Amino acid sequence: PFATLDHGRALRQGFPEVVYGASKTPEQVAAIVGRLYAHHPNLLVTRASEAAYQAVQALAPEARWDATSRLLFIRRDTTRYGIGRIVVVCAGTTDLPVAREALLTCEVMGNETTLVADVGVAGLHRLLGHLETLRQARVIVCVAGMEAALASVVGGLVAVPVIAVPTSVGYGTALGGFAALLGMLNSCAPNVTVVNIDNGFGAGYVAALINRQPGIQESTG
Amino acid sequence: PFATLDHGRALRQGFPEVVYGASKTPEQVAAIVGRLYAHHPNLLVTRASEAAYQAVQALAPEARWDATSRLLFIRRDTTRYGIGRIVVVCAGTTDLPVAREALLTCEVMGNETTLVADVGVAGLHRLLGHLETLRQARVIVCVAGMEAALASVVGGLVAVPVIAVPTSVGYGTALGGFAALLGMLNSCAPNVTVVNIDNGFGAGYVAALINRQPGIQESTG
Amino acid sequence: PFATLDHGRALRQGFPEVVYGASKTPEQVAAIVGRLYAHHPNLLVTRASEAAYQAVQALAPEARWDATSRLLFIRRDTTRYGIGRIVVVCAGTTDLPVAREALLTCEVMGNETTLVADVGVAGLHRLLGHLETLRQARVIVCVAGMEAALASVVGGLVAVPVIAVPTSVGYGTALGGFAALLGMLNSCAPNVTVVNIDNGFGAGYVAALINRQPGIQESTG
Amino acid sequence: PFATLDHGRALRQGFPEVVYGASKTPEQVAAIVGRLYAHHPNLLVTRASEAAYQAVQALAPEARWDATSRLLFIRRDTTRYGIGRIVVVCAGTTDLPVAREALLTCEVMGNETTLVADVGVAGLHRLLGHLETLRQARVIVCVAGMEAALASVVGGLVAVPVIAVPTSVGYGTALGGFAALLGMLNSCAPNVTVVNIDNGFGAGYVAALINRQPGIQESTG
Amino acid sequence: PFATLDHGRALRQGFPEVVYGASKTPEQVAAIVGRLYAHHPNLLVTRASEAAYQAVQALAPEARWDATSRLLFIRRDTTRYGIGRIVVVCAGTTDLPVAREALLTCEVMGNETTLVADVGVAGLHRLLGHLETLRQARVIVCVAGMEAALASVVGGLVAVPVIAVPTSVGYGTALGGFAALLGMLNSCAPNVTVVNIDNGFGAGYVAALINRQPGIQESTG
Amino acid sequence: PFATLDHGRALRQGFPEVVYGASKTPEQVAAIVGRLYAHHPNLLVTRASEAAYQAVQALAPEARWDATSRLLFIRRDTTRYGIGRIVVVCAGTTDLPVAREALLTCEVMGNETTLVADVGVAGLHRLLGHLETLRQARVIVCVAGMEAALASVVGGLVAVPVIAVPTSVGYGTALGGFAALLGMLNSCAPNVTVVNIDNGFGAGYVAALINRQPGIQESTG
Amino acid sequence: PFATLDHGRALRQGFPEVVYGASKTPEQVAAIVGRLYAHHPNLLVTRASEAAYQAVQALAPEARWDATSRLLFIRRDTTRYGIGRIVVVCAGTTDLPVAREALLTCEVMGNETTLVADVGVAGLHRLLGHLETLRQARVIVCVAGMEAALASVVGGLVAVPVIAVPTSVGYGTALGGFAALLGMLNSCAPNVTVVNIDNGFGAGYVAALINRQPGIQESTG
Amino acid sequence: PFATLDHGRALRQGFPEVVYGASKTPEQVAAIVGRLYAHHPNLLVTRASEAAYQAVQALAPEARWDATSRLLFIRRDTTRYGIGRIVVVCAGTTDLPVAREALLTCEVMGNETTLVADVGVAGLHRLLGHLETLRQARVIVCVAGMEAALASVVGGLVAVPVIAVPTSVGYGTALGGFAALLGMLNSCAPNVTVVNIDNGFGAGYVAALINRQPGIQESTG
Ligand SMILES: Nc1ncnc2c1ncn2[C@@H]1O[C@H](COP(=O)(O)O)[C@@H](O)[C@H]1O
Ligand SMILES: Nc1ncnc2c1ncn2[C@@H]1O[C@H](COP(=O)(O)O)[C@@H](O)[C@H]1O
Ligand SMILES: Nc1ncnc2c1ncn2[C@@H]1O[C@H](COP(=O)(O)O)[C@@H](O)[C@H]1O
Ligand SMILES: Nc1ncnc2c1ncn2[C@@H]1O[C@H](COP(=O)(O)O)[C@@H](O)[C@H]1O
Ligand SMILES: [Mg+2]
Ligand SMILES: [Mg+2]
Ligand SMILES: [Mg+2]
Ligand SMILES: [Mg+2]
Ligand SMILES: [Mg+2]
Ligand SMILES: [Mg+2]
Ligand SMILES: [Mg+2]
Ligand SMILES: [Mg+2]
Repeated sequence: PFATLDHGRALRQGFPEVVYGASKTPEQVAAIVGRLYAHHPNLLVTRASEAAYQAVQALAPEARWDATSRLLFIRRDTTRYGIGRIVVVCAGTTDLPVAREALLTCEVMGNETTLVADVGVAGLHRLLGHLETLRQARVIVCVAGMEAALASVVGGLVAVPVIAVPTSVGYGTALGGFAALLGMLNSCAPNVTVVNIDNGFGAGYVAALINRQPGIQESTG
Repeated sequence: PFATLDHGRALRQGFPEVVYGASKTPEQVAAIVGRLYAHHPNLLVTRASEAAYQAVQALAPEARWDATSRLLFIRRDTTRYGIGRIVVVCAGTTDLPVAREALLTCEVMGNETTLVADVGVAGLHRLLGHLETLRQARVIVCVAGMEAALASVVGGLVAVPVIAVPTSVGYGTALGGFAALLGMLNSCAPNVTVVNIDNGFGAGYVAALINRQPGIQESTG
Repeated sequence: PFATLDHGRALRQGFPEVVYGASKTPEQVAAIVGRLYAHHPNLLVTRASEAAYQAVQALAPEARWDATSRLLFIRRDTTRYGIGRIVVVCAGTTDLPVAREALLTCEVMGNETTLVADVGVAGLHRLLGHLETLRQARVIVCVAGMEAALASVVGGLVAVPVIAVPTSVGYGTALGGFAALLGMLNSCAPNVTVVNIDNGFGAGYVAALINRQPGIQESTG
Repeated sequence: PFATLDHGRALRQGFPEVVYGASKTPEQVAAIVGRLYAHHPNLLVTRASEAAYQAVQALAPEARWDATSRLLFIRRDTTRYGIGRIVVVCAGTTDLPVAREALLTCEVMGNETTLVADVGVAGLHRLLGHLETLRQARVIVCVAGMEAALASVVGGLVAVPVIAVPTSVGYGTALGGFAALLGMLNSCAPNVTVVNIDNGFGAGYVAALINRQPGIQESTG
Repeated sequence: PFATLDHGRALRQGFPEVVYGASKTPEQVAAIVGRLYAHHPNLLVTRASEAAYQAVQALAPEARWDATSRLLFIRRDTTRYGIGRIVVVCAGTTDLPVAREALLTCEVMGNETTLVADVGVAGLHRLLGHLETLRQARVIVCVAGMEAALASVVGGLVAVPVIAVPTSVGYGTALGGFAALLGMLNSCAPNVTVVNIDNGFGAGYVAALINRQPGIQESTG
Repeated sequence: PFATLDHGRALRQGFPEVVYGASKTPEQVAAIVGRLYAHHPNLLVTRASEAAYQAVQALAPEARWDATSRLLFIRRDTTRYGIGRIVVVCAGTTDLPVAREALLTCEVMGNETTLVADVGVAGLHRLLGHLETLRQARVIVCVAGMEAALASVVGGLVAVPVIAVPTSVGYGTALGGFAALLGMLNSCAPNVTVVNIDNGFGAGYVAALINRQPGIQESTG
Repeated sequence: PFATLDHGRALRQGFPEVVYGASKTPEQVAAIVGRLYAHHPNLLVTRASEAAYQAVQALAPEARWDATSRLLFIRRDTTRYGIGRIVVVCAGTTDLPVAREALLTCEVMGNETTLVADVGVAGLHRLLGHLETLRQARVIVCVAGMEAALASVVGGLVAVPVIAVPTSVGYGTALGGFAALLGMLNSCAPNVTVVNIDNGFGAGYVAALINRQPGIQESTG
Repeated sequence: PFATLDHGRALRQGFPEVVYGASKTPEQVAAIVGRLYAHHPNLLVTRASEAAYQAVQALAPEARWDATSRLLFIRRDTTRYGIGRIVVVCAGTTDLPVAREALLTCEVMGNETTLVADVGVAGLHRLLGHLETLRQARVIVCVAGMEAALASVVGGLVAVPVIAVPTSVGYGTALGGFAALLGMLNSCAPNVTVVNIDNGFGAGYVAALINRQPGIQESTG
């Protein structure tokens, strides 16, 4: 078989296996979702094409697809599992696809969220205008490309973990996101951790785990 | 003045400014600690030399210094601020300095901790023998050099966040920790986030924030 | 002439020259295969297009083409030259093209093979479920992208050589396979050697040589 | 001869040739300074050792040496050539050697200067407390290591050019200053230009040229 | 909203927010320009498509678009704000798109400019034939790809700041502009500062700030 | 004007300016060739498209175009300027475009040449079969991709200069020609020098200069 | 405890855990060897200092130490486990430390070996003089720095696996062994696999596994 | 034996094997020189220590050692083998060790030479003052660190081959000579070829081969 599903993952890890849609055919995606669908109320397929979405919808009518982030998701269990609020901050308009991937992942995993968009540090007052929102978060996801200075500035303003996502936005020395990645890894704020370039899903997933009441697990996983 | 102290940091971030000892003279370290000492019960100086430790002890007799990690710390407030337990796992004997830096940071910030050492994946049973310990953690810090496969294996066994610290252990293509860093950033386990190479302090700090009861802040900061 | 064929290679190296199909026209591939076909019962063309396959079939009707790996092969001699069994393990569905290139290379060179697919370390029980298969191998080919932790885990479970193939699966810091390559080169398991990124052919070729009875050579080469 | 002095440089470029002291013997430095000394009132030797300083002082008693930056300089002409004020900002205590190299270069070239030290973005209020100083500058030199977010934040607060100097402060993924360099080159503030890692001299030199009244040149060069 | 405009930027920085057109739809670009248009006489959109140009023209008939540089601009205020002349020099014909982006940015910001094109150092007399032009500049923008030796040669001929722009022109070891970038950062001429690869806009912007009479700001910003 | 032609180059350098065709329109190429054509009997345009060839032919009917290397050339002066013979050796069939660019450059510059193709070191006897040809060369151009071991082996067999050209042939760790480049730069044979990846033209040009009788220059340049 | 020994390794992997001596104190090395010594007749400690050797000898008088490779070993079981002969080939005198590490590892694991030293490809006849030796090997370890062309040439001459070890010999573009590593990974000979830079131990270990009779395991492991 | 001397090299390559002294003991160097001394009048040992020089002098009193370049040489045959003159040009004082290695290599191989030192392009008139010297060369060796623009400028002034040697002079983004290397490989002058960083020996060797009358070989080699 082309896929060995990890059926114990919801029990072991708190959420069922998330499908990486990037190099799978619509048929492969639909087949995998079909096998997971009976066991888990909520499901995620990252980097899904519109064609994959259509193939999945034929068997799972509750499936939704976000065109900006290309996230495909099923959310039948809408219980709120998170204690506090997760705030997703992004530096520019072009970081939105990654920011939305993080945001929707948090929501499908049962969290209340707020999106603060286009508040890069070149115009600092934009970010400072959201200080209250930032300070009420239990955990923050910070999405930025280019030099990604936003992560350090946000990190320095709050007392909670900041999950930083470098994006591939930029050109030349942006190096497809490596300038942002290095900036975030070297943050002078001590509360910043980092995930892979453009990995909004991973950031949202960890934010959801941080925000989860200890001992709680996804209902039917 | 050579230093502009950030006195509001304990209030704003939940812990006072941590001193980076690497390129400061013993006199500079002692001067900075002296100015922070009156305001904060607990303090951290990373990468401190033994000479810096002696200079600090002259003015702060409670100061302690861990020779393995070179962490200098003062812990006058021993309140437990963390809800659950933080487990620090490391792959080899040579990763111990970084693992201890993480462990002590967690303890100074008011957490109960467990260290699981030398359980690299080439002998998997060593890790699996600690499965219960891993499953009882609220958050795990995973320290590994060389190929750092440990982070993915640990990540796949638990339902909590794993803060991964690549170490500079290895030679040749280990690239001073970059092989480990890249491995951790590309982990197929979705609950892994990463900090800078050899940054045990940063990992411990974030683990402490994750484990902290929302709303709680360091007593006198 | 555009090509200087190495007719002694089967005698000298145990298998005839393998054609690198990547930047050759269908006509060039067919011309080269035509010149080798009279001397060697079994032939391999890697990274062959479907058009090259059709051009070859016109002169060599036994030619076969695997769409997943794009391997073109002729297997007229089906003698079993290998002593033991070669097991090809891969981490994810998206590693299958490379895994199949390795598998088919082994088979055309006269070996019995087993494929174990989609057993990445994030769900360790999947791999451990195949422990018996792994332990019965004379040599293992391990194919993985992203952080490629599978190679170290497999290496630690067996007493035979593991030929590791990093794949270009992943994004961002996966660096087109370099993260996996570095992980495999730094494996803490001592029985792992490595070939070029996506080089399933090379891994299969060496596995076949290891599994070959000393002194045995391909029949008519 | 081991050195071909560029005697026209003061006329052509507005300041005499600056000696790169890094790999010259004290004797070589003294010989070169000796040949320049008769023609130019002010001189600079970068990265000079204390021994070079002593050799130079024997023939030029006005020579001064700054131990922090290792800059050796002669300032016999103290005319003010600059129109406005040059502000040098640095992120941390460990950036001071580079910041002082910039500061002193500006001063020897006839400028009024201000140093604002240890105002990294993790404690933003420290920088914002100097807003008036920043806004009164004709040009700013911004010195920072690690992620170097300071350059973007400063750039966004003022309407003048910011010359950014990445420093080699940091470890691991700081890559000896490359993380800071990439951050500065990708700044989202449009008024930032960049010089080589640790090149405080170059930044100060360009700042002095920007601040110079058009048409004015160093007196006797 | 997908965009948080920075309306204070003209006052704070001397020119309104410049729109990065690279990954925005024509509708997004037009919406943003529409919101800025009422407040600022002059506007810039970099890397704009022809379709974005058409969408903007519908609401701002004074908009112009340069096909070579893909710069979209509105110049209603033609006051001369610059004191001296800005000279843009480029090494080859293929550097022209970047050179024109710099040139037009300077002009929209109120400067007199001269373009000196295709004067690479392999035929030095071409550059030396423009010596008078170079010497009359208040600031020079130097655009070059491949080895970018032009920046050092130009830097050595004048007493004013040289803003160097590496371009992605070249192949193989040109590394998409990194060879040129490194060359410019290591220039032995002390008056060279550098911006991102292909960033003609940034170079022109800083050149305009350098050439601006202190205290002067864009009229209605 | 978009181009500043370097008309003195034939006199100064022994051959007229060679046009880099890569990013020029057919009209630009034809315009430049038109201006050079009256002064120089022989001309070269590298990386020319077929459309550029057609545009040139309309004004210069002697123009020829080699489809493999995309070299466009005019050779009206067929005098033999070279003293000895230039041998171009390449490792594989896929290196032929670069090898032919070198070969034709040598011929247009007045040299006798021999091409030895597809003699990579994995089948050493192929190369050794051409030992006499190699030993009679005055200079050798060696073209190879992948690990480029051919350059060292050829270098060790002869007493003349070897100009090595790395090619971008290969995948994964071939790094677009960097593996070959590094191999050639570290050759243990002392007579190997290197040019840019895929730069057959440069290698041919230098080979022609080496082979030229001292004092001789292209007739009408 | 600082070390969790993997006592099952000899059974599971065919040889007991090999100690990585690089960053362990003599006391740590002796303590670990002490615990392994009772269970396994043969032991290896790589990169051991002379002091570690002396500490070990106090408790294990059979211990030997090779000053060139710094390998510390105990060989009480001298049974021959290997079927054929293992040949270790190295390119230069300076590669000898790595070559000897491979050679001794093979011997301690029960193999007959031959060393062929200083036969780099710049003088091909030196290697060809050993053709018979090479052709009689069951497996070859090939050690080379600089451009490492030796691996491809050796690979092309034999029908057995070649384990290639890049060394850090060389300077500048040798990049501490990366030029050699890339050369070996891109070998045009299909029978070459690669281990980490300077990892003679790993190469010898795999060679021993390849040469081992299937089913045979180290006596008392 | 630790060394397999290549006694045929003088006949085959025109000069006896050159010893790489970098990691050999004085005894090893002396032993090798001793074996070559009887067969060849002239010998070279690169990167030799003073101790190696003393060991060699004991058996070969004609040996000389240049402290700047650390080249050890024996020159008993002083016949002039070169036709024209070789000019070695270097950019700065700190490039002299490499320049002298090239110069002395040329001289020991029987060539007339000229050294032009410290003529970097920041003061162009220094180089142009030597135009006649440059134009009379049969071949030029150009040595430069930092951005190495000198190679392109020199290349554009002459009609002969330029062998460019990047040096490791510089700091930060000089990357130990890689900035210079990339600059030289991307030279817009077509007559530039490149050798390894700091490889003055290799450049001198090739220059000598170019300057040698065809057919001539070192007398007794
Ligand atoms: N966008 C993503 N980035 C990183 N990992 C992912 C992503 N989407 C899914 N995954 C992980 O990829 C694995 C599934 O891969 P696959 O078996 O190929 O579908 C799971 O372990 C997921 O946690
Ligand atoms: N610290 C420095 N960084 C970069 N360039 C420098 C530095 N110090 C001096 N220079 C330049 O180096 C050149 C002098 O080099 P040298 O002839 O070796 O003394 C002059 O062109 C200076 O502008
Ligand atoms: N020189 C070496 N290179 C790579 N791996 C090694 C080396 N020496 C020992 N090892 C491996 O390192 C592990 C032991 O590490 P440690 O626990 O730190 O002694 C074992 O898995 C060995 O296989
Ligand atoms: N400085 C150098 N750089 C590069 N290659 C060198 C150098 N010195 C000697 N060689 C080459 O190194 C080889 C001798 O190496 P070895 O046998 O270790 O002495 C010969 O092929 C020489 O051509
Ligand atoms: Mg915006
Ligand atoms: Mg261990
Ligand atoms: Mg899967
Ligand atoms: Mg500070
Ligand atoms: Mg031109
Ligand atoms: Mg071939
Ligand atoms: Mg040798
Ligand atoms: Mg100088």
